[in-house]
Amino acid sequence: MSGNKSLQEAFNGTVYRVSGNGKRNIQVLKEAFESVEENTESDVYGTGKLIEDFQAKLAKVLGKEAAVFFPSGTMAQQVALRIWCDQKGTKKVAYHPLCHLEIHEQDGLKELHRIEPILLADKNQLITLADVMNMKDEIACLLLELPQREIGGQLPDFTELEAISAYCRQQGIMLHLDGARLFETLPYYGKSAAEICALFDSVYISFYKGIGGIAGAILAGNKEFTEKSKIWKRRHGGDLISLYPYILTADYYFTLREHKMGQYYEAAKELAALMNQCHAVATLPVEPVSNMFHVHFECSKRELEPILAAIYEETGIGLVPVLRETGEASSYCELNMGDSYAAIPKELLRKAIQLLDEKLK
Amino acid sequence: MSGNKSLQEAFNGTVYRVSGNGKRNIQVLKEAFESVEENTESDVYGTGKLIEDFQAKLAKVLGKEAAVFFPSGTMAQQVALRIWCDQKGTKKVAYHPLCHLEIHEQDGLKELHRIEPILLADKNQLITLADVMNMKDEIACLLLELPQREIGGQLPDFTELEAISAYCRQQGIMLHLDGARLFETLPYYGKSAAEICALFDSVYISFYKGIGGIAGAILAGNKEFTEKSKIWKRRHGGDLISLYPYILTADYYFTLREHKMGQYYEAAKELAALMNQCHAVATLPVEPVSNMFHVHFECSKRELEPILAAIYEETGIGLVPVLRETGEASSYCELNMGDSYAAIPKELLRKAIQLLDEKLK
Repeated sequence: MSGNKSLQEAFNGTVYRVSGNGKRNIQVLKEAFESVEENTESDVYGTGKLIEDFQAKLAKVLGKEAAVFFPSGTMAQQVALRIWCDQKGTKKVAYHPLCHLEIHEQDGLKELHRIEPILLADKNQLITLADVMNMKDEIACLLLELPQREIGGQLPDFTELEAISAYCRQQGIMLHLDGARLFETLPYYGKSAAEICALFDSVYISFYKGIGGIAGAILAGNKEFTEKSKIWKRRHGGDLISLYPYILTADYYFTLREHKMGQYYEAAKELAALMNQCHAVATLPVEPVSNMFHVHFECSKRELEPILAAIYEETGIGLVPVLRETGEASSYCELNMGDSYAAIPKELLRKAIQLLDEKLK
Repeated sequence: MSGNKSLQEAFNGTVYRVSGNGKRNIQVLKEAFESVEENTESDVYGTGKLIEDFQAKLAKVLGKEAAVFFPSGTMAQQVALRIWCDQKGTKKVAYHPLCHLEIHEQDGLKELHRIEPILLADKNQLITLADVMNMKDEIACLLLELPQREIGGQLPDFTELEAISAYCRQQGIMLHLDGARLFETLPYYGKSAAEICALFDSVYISFYKGIGGIAGAILAGNKEFTEKSKIWKRRHGGDLISLYPYILTADYYFTLREHKMGQYYEAAKELAALMNQCHAVATLPVEPVSNMFHVHFECSKRELEPILAAIYEETGIGLVPVLRETGEASSYCELNMGDSYAAIPKELLRKAIQLLDEKLK
């Protein structure tokens, strides 16, 4: 019976989800706005108390002089790299081969800014100090993504980060942080956001990953940098008359979840350990270092889908709605732990994992 | 006493406003979301019923094959011009010297797209067929703004528009409509939006002018054009995971106000006629052709501010919070008629105008 249901359909019918903070429906907005005074004035083209207060708050959290709210990270990061390129008078930057700018932005960096990226490191590895030191091209900026999402959310040791930062400063290379999931890394590093950001010249963070807002981003750095970023934000068409629907929800969910990143991190380690007990299943990393990890299956997407769908139906627990193919007999999925995991009865979860193990034998 | 209050302070204290649809506070959002089901699913990166239904609805209204929702007009219009330039293989477009792209976008078109604009017509005049025919440069696209906002919202005759459109088609020049205030022009033209858009190859409309939404824009044209625009929207950083806060409010206020444009147009004509009876006051245009017009004063900003502040205090009617200087002894303001005007008791309005006349003698 379950074989007739698609994975997405079976997932839609589940009571529990291991990943995320719940459905992306408009209740996410309504909940955040419930407690906001109706006569609260809109921000107006990047000015006004509402946006300025939030920017000041996040600048402080990140330990930077100033911060600017952007509608998206795509816009914020292109702008950051452009500013550093213009400052140095070169059109080259370096980043990981699976960097968001390289694979998810339709080449905006190249098409709009004519910036040439140098791809550092093998795509399945983190960027190391050696990669940076061996680079032959003169670059304006190095972008590091913490955690490196496309390889399961891996993180370099903090000492490696410090060494890369020190080398870049010595070489006059600006260091930019793709911190879309920065807060999710803090429990592993045992550091504050400001302590990590101190290693970087500019920082981008997102509000709809672990934080669970609607959309929106912050770009932070020194005042000269953020003032320039406002000009580029207008050029990109991101200086909207009102950004408050994103700002107020970002603020609400940041306050709600900032301190729960430790819980999500522990949940990721617990679930990954359970998964790794299953036949033909391995997580990447083996032990997660943030709230996220990938689950690799030695089983094709086509074979695995009905197996997962049957488990979803039997237990009411949903793993993911979509699997991705990695080869003829292998597939994977990404899990991001949030509020949803804590609601699952542990016995039921164990049963689901046990079923998975049995069916993959 | 009133002389001590700034114009902005006096304006903030008024009960009635001649311009606009009310305050830009978060109640604008709350009202629109009140009637939306809480489990309505978010759009996801430009897909999903919520965004696709609204795009289809507006494509139909504008008589175009397809439409794409953008976070801003700045983004939508740069994208439109880029697509037409790429198609023709030239980097030149033409528009009015006071075009939004020329004076309000920090040169995004030039800095991001390397497009060179040819400025057509004197800045105080509308673009005419003769201007277009006399142009020596080969351009990919001509942008016309209806109404021409920076000169009081003037409009060409419809026959002139038809002639420009016919000439452009004959010459292989794409015609793009900056229709930020398109719906506001329909009562004057006595045409449907689709009838006007039929003269153009691509159309942008805004949802926070006469419509009174929070932000957001639609870009419409043929399917090939709109599909390309989605790629550029992602490059610009405008393909947000969720745009629903803008889409749902745009839809709500479009439904609420689309049919009130005639009322706003009549209000503009009525108020302009009253204004023109005042000493040292002249509206541009003398008789408005949309819901907007400019009011020019033969009086310096410095002298006029305390006069207006005193009138605001005495009558409780606010004209504008800010005046703009045009010379040592002249100033002006812009008025956009919306819902607010109808609430003003006519006797009180006449008194305010009479006071203005007396004080300017």
